Amino acid sequence: MSQVSQPDTIRSEKTEKTPESIKYGERIIEEGELITFPNPRPGRRYDVQITFPEFTCKCPFSGYPDFATFYINYCPDEKVVELKALKLYANSFRDRYISHEEVVNVILDDFVAACDPLFVKIRADFNPRGNVHMVVEVQHEKT
Amino acid sequence: MSQVSQPDTIRSEKTEKTPESIKYGERIIEEGELITFPNPRPGRRYDVQITFPEFTCKCPFSGYPDFATFYINYCPDEKVVELKALKLYANSFRDRYISHEEVVNVILDDFVAACDPLFVKIRADFNPRGNVHMVVEVQHEKT
Amino acid sequence: MSQVSQPDTIRSEKTEKTPESIKYGERIIEEGELITFPNPRPGRRYDVQITFPEFTCKCPFSGYPDFATFYINYCPDEKVVELKALKLYANSFRDRYISHEEVVNVILDDFVAACDPLFVKIRADFNPRGNVHMVVEVQHEKT
Amino acid sequence: MSQVSQPDTIRSEKTEKTPESIKYGERIIEEGELITFPNPRPGRRYDVQITFPEFTCKCPFSGYPDFATFYINYCPDEKVVELKALKLYANSFRDRYISHEEVVNVILDDFVAACDPLFVKIRADFNPRGNVHMVVEVQHEKT
Amino acid sequence: MSQVSQPDTIRSEKTEKTPESIKYGERIIEEGELITFPNPRPGRRYDVQITFPEFTCKCPFSGYPDFATFYINYCPDEKVVELKALKLYANSFRDRYISHEEVVNVILDDFVAACDPLFVKIRADFNPRGNVHMVVEVQHEKT
Amino acid sequence: MSQVSQPDTIRSEKTEKTPESIKYGERIIEEGELITFPNPRPGRRYDVQITFPEFTCKCPFSGYPDFATFYINYCPDEKVVELKALKLYANSFRDRYISHEEVVNVILDDFVAACDPLFVKIRADFNPRGNVHMVVEVQHEKT
Amino acid sequence: MSQVSQPDTIRSEKTEKTPESIKYGERIIEEGELITFPNPRPGRRYDVQITFPEFTCKCPFSGYPDFATFYINYCPDEKVVELKALKLYANSFRDRYISHEEVVNVILDDFVAACDPLFVKIRADFNPRGNVHMVVEVQHEKT
Amino acid sequence: MSQVSQPDTIRSEKTEKTPESIKYGERIIEEGELITFPNPRPGRRYDVQITFPEFTCKCPFSGYPDFATFYINYCPDEKVVELKALKLYANSFRDRYISHEEVVNVILDDFVAACDPLFVKIRADFNPRGNVHMVVEVQHEKT
Amino acid sequence: MSQVSQPDTIRSEKTEKTPESIKYGERIIEEGELITFPNPRPGRRYDVQITFPEFTCKCPFSGYPDFATFYINYCPDEKVVELKALKLYANSFRDRYISHEEVVNVILDDFVAACDPLFVKIRADFNPRGNVHMVVEVQHEKT
Amino acid sequence: MSQVSQPDTIRSEKTEKTPESIKYGERIIEEGELITFPNPRPGRRYDVQITFPEFTCKCPFSGYPDFATFYINYCPDEKVVELKALKLYANSFRDRYISHEEVVNVILDDFVAACDPLFVKIRADFNPRGNVHMVVEVQHEKT
Repeated sequence: MSQVSQPDTIRSEKTEKTPESIKYGERIIEEGELITFPNPRPGRRYDVQITFPEFTCKCPFSGYPDFATFYINYCPDEKVVELKALKLYANSFRDRYISHEEVVNVILDDFVAACDPLFVKIRADFNPRGNVHMVVEVQHEKT
Repeated sequence: MSQVSQPDTIRSEKTEKTPESIKYGERIIEEGELITFPNPRPGRRYDVQITFPEFTCKCPFSGYPDFATFYINYCPDEKVVELKALKLYANSFRDRYISHEEVVNVILDDFVAACDPLFVKIRADFNPRGNVHMVVEVQHEKT
Repeated sequence: MSQVSQPDTIRSEKTEKTPESIKYGERIIEEGELITFPNPRPGRRYDVQITFPEFTCKCPFSGYPDFATFYINYCPDEKVVELKALKLYANSFRDRYISHEEVVNVILDDFVAACDPLFVKIRADFNPRGNVHMVVEVQHEKT
Repeated sequence: MSQVSQPDTIRSEKTEKTPESIKYGERIIEEGELITFPNPRPGRRYDVQITFPEFTCKCPFSGYPDFATFYINYCPDEKVVELKALKLYANSFRDRYISHEEVVNVILDDFVAACDPLFVKIRADFNPRGNVHMVVEVQHEKT
Repeated sequence: MSQVSQPDTIRSEKTEKTPESIKYGERIIEEGELITFPNPRPGRRYDVQITFPEFTCKCPFSGYPDFATFYINYCPDEKVVELKALKLYANSFRDRYISHEEVVNVILDDFVAACDPLFVKIRADFNPRGNVHMVVEVQHEKT
Repeated sequence: MSQVSQPDTIRSEKTEKTPESIKYGERIIEEGELITFPNPRPGRRYDVQITFPEFTCKCPFSGYPDFATFYINYCPDEKVVELKALKLYANSFRDRYISHEEVVNVILDDFVAACDPLFVKIRADFNPRGNVHMVVEVQHEKT
Repeated sequence: MSQVSQPDTIRSEKTEKTPESIKYGERIIEEGELITFPNPRPGRRYDVQITFPEFTCKCPFSGYPDFATFYINYCPDEKVVELKALKLYANSFRDRYISHEEVVNVILDDFVAACDPLFVKIRADFNPRGNVHMVVEVQHEKT
Repeated sequence: MSQVSQPDTIRSEKTEKTPESIKYGERIIEEGELITFPNPRPGRRYDVQITFPEFTCKCPFSGYPDFATFYINYCPDEKVVELKALKLYANSFRDRYISHEEVVNVILDDFVAACDPLFVKIRADFNPRGNVHMVVEVQHEKT
Repeated sequence: MSQVSQPDTIRSEKTEKTPESIKYGERIIEEGELITFPNPRPGRRYDVQITFPEFTCKCPFSGYPDFATFYINYCPDEKVVELKALKLYANSFRDRYISHEEVVNVILDDFVAACDPLFVKIRADFNPRGNVHMVVEVQHEKT
Repeated sequence: MSQVSQPDTIRSEKTEKTPESIKYGERIIEEGELITFPNPRPGRRYDVQITFPEFTCKCPFSGYPDFATFYINYCPDEKVVELKALKLYANSFRDRYISHEEVVNVILDDFVAACDPLFVKIRADFNPRGNVHMVVEVQHEKT
């Protein structure tokens, strides 16, 4: 049973982000794109439903953090979105300042640009603020 | 039957509301309007669903308090309603005397006047009285 | 099937509260006390659990409304609290400015003063603010 | 019905954080401390239970984001923690690199330093990774 | 098999109902009608959903009690049903002998006679008997 | 497939209860007692838990109906209560005027008188009135 | 194994079923038919939904017991099915050897033969075998 | 893809059970015993919890079927009960006439005789009759 | 009460799979096909819904295990799928390397080849990875 | 937006596992050990609760797959178990033949050998077989 010692440099304090100090996960997220691979059944119409509950961004007015769960439902055409890349893409909003209505539309645009699906619906369920709860839902159909 | 007088030492009493004694939250609620901002994607049809569970008003006959959860579902046209302003607007009914059927229709009228949406549906789920539970639902479509 | 016409004076607007305009329910709430009646089985220890989900008061700093569900669990000694009077007493906090910690302690004091129970525990579950949720629980045992 | 126009400077892109560009919410979080106020009933033992579901920090090894819900249960002695300040304090971990076991112990230490309670238990329920779910729970009693 | 006689001291016995001994709540129920008031928005189509879980009547064959929850969903035309009156009307079935299928149809007929709605659907969910559960649902549309 | 015709005498109206008109179920309920049979394992301590959700009686003040679910948990000594008889006994409260606190104590007394158990706890969960919910719980231990 | 004397006629052992030893409940089940009575509102279309969770039969290959919950939803025409008779009919499958697909179709046929409804849908939800769960649903419309 | 033809002899009718007609599953159930195997960790105290929701037997008075879910919780000593054998043993009650209180005690006796555990608790949760729900719980500790 | 001793060959270690060491369950799974039997009601359209929650295969890139619950909903034409064979077929994916999108399409193809149904829809709900949850749904209609 | 093509070697068929064909995830699982790191707060007693729902192994008699969810609750002493290593360790049982009782005890032994905790409890909740559900729970305390 091997035992690893915790690296000395780990401090529970916020450190300045210099290019050298960026960790590998952060670099992967920063470089993240919506990678696709070819649809294994291009001629058959089918649905893919994806849920990721860990979306967070920042309010464009106050800078306070916002949190949401995203639901993506799409019918792939030629390309299928890679699941891990989608998560990294979602992680990339962590330091962005963007409103509820705006972010859902931005993600729809990026998703369509990446995989050009037959159909896609995106729903974002934001954590309540002042005990008011908001959901935004938008869709796109290939014409 | 009553056998107890409320102790003198209770300080959290109801105070007369003079203009000077009104707190800042109360003033904000009183002046509250359904503020809007421009729809970030005016040409694309999408849904916004809002829930606020802390609605309270008063029965027009007895003055007893009523409680409800409101659900608003709308498709914005040119304007989007500001979420915090919507909550303050809802708070402004706290001292009004208004029936279940009336209040849902009043809020629909105010909402349409404020943001003129493509579509809006409002549903109010009132807390039970005498273990009877009532829901009122009304909608409007832009023609 | 008789049909009643809605009184003309009902307007969905906030009216000035003059002594004449106070409705009967408001007057009953204002005069409300924690009425008791004699315990029908004074020698036998038993539990009474009461829940009322419609508590509302105001924040002493901002004046914004707060909402909570109260849970009262007590063992009566000589007196039992009248259920409707307890609800009216709870309604009487609607216009008071009082903090979460304070209001639970005040209600405990008033409850003990009214019916002097063998034991009582009061739990208040406040609606979340900023998606932070708070519960306060306090108890008293007759010595 | 007034209508506000969205400020030009809002872009859904990550901007460099210079001292000037920091928004007011971010500054409040950065300066955030666990503010307390005097316990309104210092001699009576009672419980306060607080839940905040929006905790996020970063993995000290990879830099990938972690998410958790925190549960704090404490008996105040002389001081009570201010609820909004607690939320801001929790927000301040957003950019810290810290492990699951470490963060729960750090928050316990900070909480005790701030309000020196009679008792406190902290439970952190982390979102699953690789479908493995982890909870850490730690407590402190004043001696 | 029976080995126990009910103690003499039990005072909560069933009393003969003479006109003098009828309590005020019983008299109100007996005289109860489906009172209506004018629809506050007669030209706009909207839905009202009412649930009352405390319906009880008696089996026409055996006289054993039956229990049900009723769901009424209607679109008012000129008149709106008064909620408390509806509950009292439902209470008036307590001593009637009526089958499951019959009672739902009788209540539909009475409801239509009282307020002549644009549409009404009534659903009665009866408590199981012999672990068999029955629901009856009927509707009416104004032509 | 035989077909039975519904008896002519069934009218969905309240009929005067003369001795002749009482139906067999009503007679069984009226004569109902808490029948017992010998415990099949008198020396071994074990628990029996019984739930009946269809309890109804009348408020001693107003005559309005009350509803409750009862939970009985007991350790039989020499006798075991017959389940159907217990239900009929519960049905016998339908026309009694009795308060929440009183009825739970009366049923405890009758249960102990009938089967003299080693232990019994009775819990009555009453339907809410004015959205206030009440539970009464009482127990008895053989000494 | 049994060590207690229960009344002589009761044995907790499987007894040969001779005509004399058959108990009254078993005889009623054996003779059970789907009894109907006349629809109290023959001209009005309405729905009746029935659930019975205690269906059991035997696998035609192995003889192992199968268990299911049945859901019947129908619109009566001239006849309404008697609820208790339906339960007894369902009980009559206890010793039959019949497959999942077959039994649902047999019950549909018998139901239509008994009451000739305007519409009927039958759904059987079988308990899982090997953690595989199966539901069969079939319907019939009067032409 | 092979296709099996359904045997001709399968009829959805109750057949007389002659020794020849008994199916293999029925024979296995009839011969079923509570088979055990040696505890793989005899010195260490640990718990095994078993649930089987498909228990059915017959009422000793009426012959009507009863249904229950059984919960067995035990600490093995030298022997562990084989899971499939336990299910077959439970199946063997299908045609027995036995009361609720009796059957739980019989199964406890048989279980102790089979594997002589350090501790065992058996709980049977019977399906409601007349909407009354009954649970019986009994335990045994090795001395 | 017979007692079986655990066979010597059982070791809780991974053994090389030689043809001789394959256990009977593994051989059955390996030889497993989607066996069918004739539809007992070929002319009547009805639905069969099957759920199996224990599907596992391996990621074609990493070899890490994946887990899913499958839902199959079909209308049989001439043939009905044997339930146990379907489970064995699902078990046969345990050592295959196959992507989420691919496996659902493969199972659809095999299902159609086996029983040629009027309609079939297959839905696979995969366990989350990185707290991202994915569902794939595909259907086929006989033309 | 880059697009990756699926490697040619991916076939949805079981391939012979030669040393060369083993994928990197499989190699990591095979070499997996319960890696630990030093407890960040060695003197303070605290709890860590871990859940992993994707455990699978094989029945030692038949070779059929078994599935379970594991719950581990422990108080670390000097060492804390690395979460990802624990998951890989759990994955390593996928091809082992081991009984329910045995596997829980083996995992307890390995866990104690790896991190020597002050206390540990392990609970395994196995998927039902024949609709019978089994849970095994075992614990260890450092002396």
